[in-house]
Amino acid sequence: MTDPSVHTAFGVYAVCVENDKLLVIHKSRGPYVHRYDLPGGNPEAGESLATALRREFLEETGMTVRLRRNIGTADVKLPWHFGQTASLHHIAAFYEGERASVPAQAPAVFEEQDALGTAWVSAEHVSTANASPLVLLACAWLKKRELPLETFTYETWEVLPRPDAYL
Amino acid sequence: MTDPSVHTAFGVYAVCVENDKLLVIHKSRGPYVHRYDLPGGNPEAGESLATALRREFLEETGMTVRLRRNIGTADVKLPWHFGQTASLHHIAAFYEGERASVPAQAPAVFEEQDALGTAWVSAEHVSTANASPLVLLACAWLKKRELPLETFTYETWEVLPRPDAYL
Repeated sequence: MTDPSVHTAFGVYAVCVENDKLLVIHKSRGPYVHRYDLPGGNPEAGESLATALRREFLEETGMTVRLRRNIGTADVKLPWHFGQTASLHHIAAFYEGERASVPAQAPAVFEEQDALGTAWVSAEHVSTANASPLVLLACAWLKKRELPLETFTYETWEVLPRPDAYL
Repeated sequence: MTDPSVHTAFGVYAVCVENDKLLVIHKSRGPYVHRYDLPGGNPEAGESLATALRREFLEETGMTVRLRRNIGTADVKLPWHFGQTASLHHIAAFYEGERASVPAQAPAVFEEQDALGTAWVSAEHVSTANASPLVLLACAWLKKRELPLETFTYETWEVLPRPDAYL
């Protein structure tokens, strides 16, 4: 009953808002490359969810985050060729957070770093063309204070070719 | 940076309340065997979260569930010997739900079935002695309408020896 063509990924993500703008990162790899994405990522084996989110947030933004509360979980499916798999099932746990420091340091530089700086964006300025499904889910939550129960499914997914495609 | 001694499990679970009582199942396997547990379980590869929860709920309770909204995610760590691993990191996404049917059928009978019937329990009647961490988290949410951000960690965990230990 398993589907070996699907790559399942689980991550934890922070929704941080200041002055009606959402904190995003510039994604540098994966299916959301060259789009805005939420700070966060996959826990390492045995790593607590809150610990993983604080670590990823610091690595990607150079700031510490104060987690406020659970928002919920959502999932996304899209075509994505990764190893032997043809599609991605991305399961995301969302937390409301706030930055607890100004950038004390640039985002960490290391081989697996997948963020290239941060930005604050307005919900009306994001779309599939420039943002990951996680950013769109966060914007939907900001509007309705509820995450959808059903999967966000994309029949097609364009991986953007250029880092400046969303500028 | 991975820890091969940890078994990570992800599941989706329903919190259903009627007359101030929480719907639970009698767990028949795993670390929570012979305790109350929440209906729900692990999505199969590629299976949507909501689909997985509706399937598990029907299999375990014989009832259909109407999902109402996301509650959030919590994680639990406890000692548990499973294969080569020595501890369990259980990541659980919680949904508020309500049963959408009376039991039209007995819980499904098949080899991997891990529930032996259902019960409705009051929060004051559950404890680590008779309930899984998921049930305790659900009761905490019912009281505060918030799930904890930090991991529920058990330094020791007693697997109950008899099916009637909680009766």
